[in-house]
Amino acid sequence: MRACVLGTGSWGTTFAQVLADAGHDVVLWGRSEAVCAEVREAHTNSGYVPGVVLPERITATTDARAALAGASLVAVALPSQAVRSILSELPDAVEPDAVVVSLMKGVELTSDERMSELLAEALRVPAARLAVLSGPNLAGEIAQRQPTTTVVASISTETAQRVAHACATDYFRTFTNTDVIGVELGGAVKNVIALAVGIAQGKGYGDNTKASIITRGLSEATRLGVALGASAATFAGLAGMGDLVATCASPLSRNHTLGVHIGAGMSLDEAVAVTGGTAEGAKSCRSVLDLARRHGVTMSITAAVVAVLYEGTSVEDMVRALITRPPRPED
Amino acid sequence: MRACVLGTGSWGTTFAQVLADAGHDVVLWGRSEAVCAEVREAHTNSGYVPGVVLPERITATTDARAALAGASLVAVALPSQAVRSILSELPDAVEPDAVVVSLMKGVELTSDERMSELLAEALRVPAARLAVLSGPNLAGEIAQRQPTTTVVASISTETAQRVAHACATDYFRTFTNTDVIGVELGGAVKNVIALAVGIAQGKGYGDNTKASIITRGLSEATRLGVALGASAATFAGLAGMGDLVATCASPLSRNHTLGVHIGAGMSLDEAVAVTGGTAEGAKSCRSVLDLARRHGVTMSITAAVVAVLYEGTSVEDMVRALITRPPRPED
Repeated sequence: MRACVLGTGSWGTTFAQVLADAGHDVVLWGRSEAVCAEVREAHTNSGYVPGVVLPERITATTDARAALAGASLVAVALPSQAVRSILSELPDAVEPDAVVVSLMKGVELTSDERMSELLAEALRVPAARLAVLSGPNLAGEIAQRQPTTTVVASISTETAQRVAHACATDYFRTFTNTDVIGVELGGAVKNVIALAVGIAQGKGYGDNTKASIITRGLSEATRLGVALGASAATFAGLAGMGDLVATCASPLSRNHTLGVHIGAGMSLDEAVAVTGGTAEGAKSCRSVLDLARRHGVTMSITAAVVAVLYEGTSVEDMVRALITRPPRPED
Repeated sequence: MRACVLGTGSWGTTFAQVLADAGHDVVLWGRSEAVCAEVREAHTNSGYVPGVVLPERITATTDARAALAGASLVAVALPSQAVRSILSELPDAVEPDAVVVSLMKGVELTSDERMSELLAEALRVPAARLAVLSGPNLAGEIAQRQPTTTVVASISTETAQRVAHACATDYFRTFTNTDVIGVELGGAVKNVIALAVGIAQGKGYGDNTKASIITRGLSEATRLGVALGASAATFAGLAGMGDLVATCASPLSRNHTLGVHIGAGMSLDEAVAVTGGTAEGAKSCRSVLDLARRHGVTMSITAAVVAVLYEGTSVEDMVRALITRPPRPED
């Protein structure tokens, strides 16, 4: 089979390796001719997956139409806020029977759309030919072929299975799911929780505090998901809990790192400057909280993150507000 | 209120501090006169909670009857395999209206009973006056008054609330639950999963692998729990996921450490010798697997742990067997 991956960042390049290891010919598309030439000629992408030699069946081009031609699987790993403008030129370039897989997390800020909704619009692909892939998938470890698991979700069981088979290797185990909303929402809310965990850690709190925030954070994410039509089980699965636990354990997560700086006493602006680059959770926490309020869902941890980042609440007061409450039933 | 804590180990002593901070007079009971004298006179228990100065309203005695007299809350933190013989002398010493709280995890190996079942028998206390307490509760961090959360479960909502109120402080947030089986089973199976995570880590695998095992491990624990009458939500909560995540993050967990040694190539006997002391998961993995088979529940990770510990399977083969499977629906 021929596959195309749009995006030569660390996740796009790593997923191209997974597809090649699964036996497919892969064409990577990116905007940088220098990166594409390096992939084609040296079989490396040193800026994004340093130290990794890529399989020879991966090639790369800056010509998106050439990359998409003949590809029966198209994986998209582009920056969430740029994806619409990049893809809206290309709907006729996608093969009519191709399945499209979103590897992206987050929500487009201008539209509040999830990535799969955005892909359906921009590429004019029916939802039954769209899938999303998410799980405990730190790209650097997958590039090293360390064993992991992931979830492929589509409203079409057949599409989910097609994608799950296409990318299964002896280090990448795939599960299928039909809960697209749950899988995508898990990825978006995860960043906010990782930020909260980072804040507690930066303040000097230990593993109990961290585990409490992870668990109660996932619990409030689940409540929001259920209110939006997702299944609670998805949040307890690999794209919910699995992704969250991997992110909060990794020192490489930008949301987590930003939180650590804020917990240690920096302002949001200082922390953003030191962290370098965007931490998705710092942007999306307000959208998530708005969404929760519109649906009548209480999200104490998300509200606490918004309060610390944007309303001048101290970290001590935030933690105290989360802890000193009368006992109530767990849910 | 007057409370009694049976057991002067790190968790018993720390929970005595929580109760004292919540405003109660606490009597600790232990077998060692030296430890009791140190608690009474120096307000320390240097062998179990080093560096911590205990509140003055905690006292200690080796006289169990004196410790229990007048106590309206009795917390039990004794070694799981010794608790029956210690308590079976004492049922008439417990005040008739006292609530009894189990702080213990695991299952009595000779009877396969959960700790609350064992307490009900040994102390002749009705189940409605029994509660179990579990969560992301590494004792060392609670002794430092770092914020955390816990679950108090009882078949009686009133008993759960009574205990939850009695031990709520500004660093110890309590939730109530009626799913006693789920809370206790979560604690028992957690040790097996922590062992599996340790094995993968000792082998050199990273955060994706770890998060995958944690998530899929909790998923199989949940399936067993549901087959035994517990609620899936309990496993997604603080006594399930919360406790598991804290344990797998902590370098102090004995199950986790034992696994790391095995993953690095030691035999079980060598690893036990180096770890020093009992790792509950190494004992209980076979009981858990038997229980699962009797109830028709598949537990791949538990089976893999048993295979590595007792059947000579290599860690590589174990991981390969977990990963190289055809895609299937996530559950």
